[in-house]
Amino acid sequence: MSLNAYPPVLTQLIRRLSKLPGLGEKSATRIAMFLLQCPKEEAEAIAEGILQMRSQVHTCSRCFHFTDEELCSICRDPARDTGVICVVESTADLLAVEQSGAFKGRYHVLQGVLAPLDAIGPDDIRIKELLKRLDTENIKEIIIATNPSSEGEATAHYLVKLLKDRPLRISRIAYGIPMGGDLKYTDRITMERALKGRQEF
Amino acid sequence: MSLNAYPPVLTQLIRRLSKLPGLGEKSATRIAMFLLQCPKEEAEAIAEGILQMRSQVHTCSRCFHFTDEELCSICRDPARDTGVICVVESTADLLAVEQSGAFKGRYHVLQGVLAPLDAIGPDDIRIKELLKRLDTENIKEIIIATNPSSEGEATAHYLVKLLKDRPLRISRIAYGIPMGGDLKYTDRITMERALKGRQEF
Repeated sequence: MSLNAYPPVLTQLIRRLSKLPGLGEKSATRIAMFLLQCPKEEAEAIAEGILQMRSQVHTCSRCFHFTDEELCSICRDPARDTGVICVVESTADLLAVEQSGAFKGRYHVLQGVLAPLDAIGPDDIRIKELLKRLDTENIKEIIIATNPSSEGEATAHYLVKLLKDRPLRISRIAYGIPMGGDLKYTDRITMERALKGRQEF
Repeated sequence: MSLNAYPPVLTQLIRRLSKLPGLGEKSATRIAMFLLQCPKEEAEAIAEGILQMRSQVHTCSRCFHFTDEELCSICRDPARDTGVICVVESTADLLAVEQSGAFKGRYHVLQGVLAPLDAIGPDDIRIKELLKRLDTENIKEIIIATNPSSEGEATAHYLVKLLKDRPLRISRIAYGIPMGGDLKYTDRITMERALKGRQEF
């Protein structure tokens, strides 16, 4: 779309917005138009929200989840089980686990996965910090919840090898047919995992 | 999605972003995460871009297109034909006409359409301002380019009735554009055909 007919400050904002994930030039234009025509306070609240977020939000010094304090809300929560750590790749994955309501321990966000092809090794993600937590906190169980991708698998296996001599229960969340899924549309790899992960009644 | 596990400033930003057109909670979360993890300057450039746009961009005092000066870039352009006005509903529609490259006159943005059901009458859109332009500028032709919706039709007919006794050529762009369609999503070729095929009332 030719944006020449707009004032430069508007064109530039559209260009910047269109680089956000999930947006293209048309959706960015629509959003910019909305921000230009909505009540001024709403547009300012979003702009100031972005600035505030960038100045206040950082990662929890213990688990690397996002927080605006020293420790995140989960690490601060006295009701959580302090002896269990669920290891996830990202905050988004943490949130997905948290949503289930089925986990009451704490987390450790790796902030990435091992990806040799992208030159991301153990020192590039928060593995050292996990080991330090195992040395200083009284951890009894580690649940590995990396994604079922080749990088997630590699990271899980690396962690198991690294931790297996410690006095810990180490488990990995089950990968198989999703609830509501359909066996006949399930891919081979998922089916294989579901079969291998079968549990006795 | 449960957002309780996020710091309040992040949750609030996600809530605000999810009200933008085309975004829901998931896409807003994805954008907020991106804005939190991208280089700080990029996030700040977007926030400041929004604030700058709101403080600098307003409507052209002549045609009501967006501008950051007294008159918009089109009204200021000495190469444009000052005797022809293309009447559009919105700036987005103006841009769609502009893109075709087939119109070299000036515009008049109505900033809306007649919509009796929403209690939007002639005084609520920029019709008075159009009449004033006809009195003060040396206009020879009016091209009506409202959308092919019932409100757009009604607005076009209202304008024709209002203007038909003046010494003007009044035309309407040809609707190769299907009824129920939307100008701002029309491809250039169709738009050019529609402009060239305009017919006198």
